[in-house]
Amino acid sequence: METITIKTSTHDYDVSIGKGLRFQLKTFIPNTHSHVYIISDSNVAPLYLDDVINHLSSTYKVSYTIVPAGEGSKNSRLYFDVMTELIDSGLDRHGLIIALGGGMIGDLAGFVAATYMRGVDFLQMPTTILAHDSSVGGKVAINHPAGKNLIGAFYPPVAVVYDVDTLHTIPFTEIRSGYAEIAKHSMIHHPPFWNTIQSVQLGEQLNDEALMRDLLQGIRVKANIVELDEKESNIRQFLNFGHTLGHALEAELGYGVLTHGEAVAIGMLFALEVSEKTFQVDLPRTAFFQWLERNNYPLSLPKITTQTLINRMKRDKKSKNDTVTMVLLEELGKPVMVDMDEPRLSQWLDEFMRKMVIR
Amino acid sequence: METITIKTSTHDYDVSIGKGLRFQLKTFIPNTHSHVYIISDSNVAPLYLDDVINHLSSTYKVSYTIVPAGEGSKNSRLYFDVMTELIDSGLDRHGLIIALGGGMIGDLAGFVAATYMRGVDFLQMPTTILAHDSSVGGKVAINHPAGKNLIGAFYPPVAVVYDVDTLHTIPFTEIRSGYAEIAKHSMIHHPPFWNTIQSVQLGEQLNDEALMRDLLQGIRVKANIVELDEKESNIRQFLNFGHTLGHALEAELGYGVLTHGEAVAIGMLFALEVSEKTFQVDLPRTAFFQWLERNNYPLSLPKITTQTLINRMKRDKKSKNDTVTMVLLEELGKPVMVDMDEPRLSQWLDEFMRKMVIR
Repeated sequence: METITIKTSTHDYDVSIGKGLRFQLKTFIPNTHSHVYIISDSNVAPLYLDDVINHLSSTYKVSYTIVPAGEGSKNSRLYFDVMTELIDSGLDRHGLIIALGGGMIGDLAGFVAATYMRGVDFLQMPTTILAHDSSVGGKVAINHPAGKNLIGAFYPPVAVVYDVDTLHTIPFTEIRSGYAEIAKHSMIHHPPFWNTIQSVQLGEQLNDEALMRDLLQGIRVKANIVELDEKESNIRQFLNFGHTLGHALEAELGYGVLTHGEAVAIGMLFALEVSEKTFQVDLPRTAFFQWLERNNYPLSLPKITTQTLINRMKRDKKSKNDTVTMVLLEELGKPVMVDMDEPRLSQWLDEFMRKMVIR
Repeated sequence: METITIKTSTHDYDVSIGKGLRFQLKTFIPNTHSHVYIISDSNVAPLYLDDVINHLSSTYKVSYTIVPAGEGSKNSRLYFDVMTELIDSGLDRHGLIIALGGGMIGDLAGFVAATYMRGVDFLQMPTTILAHDSSVGGKVAINHPAGKNLIGAFYPPVAVVYDVDTLHTIPFTEIRSGYAEIAKHSMIHHPPFWNTIQSVQLGEQLNDEALMRDLLQGIRVKANIVELDEKESNIRQFLNFGHTLGHALEAELGYGVLTHGEAVAIGMLFALEVSEKTFQVDLPRTAFFQWLERNNYPLSLPKITTQTLINRMKRDKKSKNDTVTMVLLEELGKPVMVDMDEPRLSQWLDEFMRKMVIR
């Protein structure tokens, strides 16, 4: 088992990564809790919920709810329904909420925990690679029809327990989605990490050792940044590399057409292109494109007008006063925030989308 | 103008109290903001919204929304609608939300501010006496059909600007409601403050000097307590004196039948009676009852079964493991938390309710 400690303004917490941790979960729960409420989804619950309940129920009162899998469950109605179930279960302010699932469950359960009776403890049990990103840093949220994560809070968990066994059951599209964020962490950090990722072939060949190595390194990059800027006043925004267009694509296509990581991968491709044009530098744009192709990332898009995407990008939380702000790379490992000139952005996005649509 | 500084775990903020402060509002707004969004209600907006907009609009982009007056607006649907209006107005993470109104507006706008794009700054402009309580301490929330304030957060404002001019337009029932919380602050603090309050006659005779004196003293009591226990782990619960039964009555009768303070006043009467029986002490129970009568507080209740109220009291956020926990007074100014024995509580509540119903 490997452990990384994350510092926040309110408390420190450990991210523990290892095999079979779901059978050791009790050791990560402070004994001040007596009632544990598990929130999981319809994909993950059939696989691991029984393991967790069986392990915990000799020590705790255990309640649970299962929400439909998919980003669509991060909506205000379901959020409110879960609140009602928590109340009906008798969970009080001293209860613990466990998020058993991927990033969607972490975001939803985390926002529920942040706002149930003004905040109860929560523990994350990520079951996807992508959740290595979302489970660190305390961001929790639900979506609004106008955009992703527009309703949320900063609310760090009390612990993250990452059982790598649970990563073997995720579909290939989720492996791709998770590795896109790992690739992002590698590019905004330092070149050696990208070199490692570049040689990773996703799929059957991916073994536990390589997976744990990449997850740990990804979490370290993220932890370094969020510890310096928990509330995203400045450098934390670097983590949004690839997300400005990524979020716009996700929202425009409807959540679930592309996975989050697949959308971000396309966003990174665009951000690399814009970076090269803006700073007249060579970046591993082609190498990244080839890595995406080799690993079967979806790289063709339906036709969407440039203006539609730009309007979406303006509503991004980074943007200020109706200007699109993007994270670009001055060089590999050196991210920077840039307020984009709209006509130029529009032209570059137009060119980019034409390439992606005709493929 | 008088100022009290409140310390919180994230930042300090000032509560400023004085006449005509709505015309000096700019001096309380940090110049990092460019877009200000005012949330007010249908009672307060016709009286003061224009003053505030006229004062601010030369310096800031100003948007606003007006919600129906009354506790009923603290619901999840309206919360979500306000979120949509904020997005439509173009407010970004650097915006400022101003809560112009009483406790309901402070709670709703505060919870909106706490969760809009994971948190934007907000400033409270309380326009009721009751809001001297709710505007200090950072508690924000909306209601759930199962109970008050079950969905919320701890989210302190950046400033509280209390224009006492705005207190002259509130109806008498709201003056009573506010003074019930002032009376509560006096009883959990030290005897001299209760002696002052005891001699206050509400209504026309209440002048600005007496009002500011009592507001300041009430805020000081509250500030002392919340600074020591921001997240309500221990002594902050003393502020719930009278609230266990008070909340149950409010919820059972439907919000709006009794004002919050009127319900708390009845709750305090019961808490005083239970305190006397539990600790065999003499408390100013009769004096408080007479003060309530003299100031025309509603003291007759419709018939409600004791069990119904006890079930509500068990769902109170202070309660743990299905036991009703009440704040009692060992003596005047010495509050203490007590886990109640249910059969005894039930008998005392039965006797109490019989007195209140037959009046």
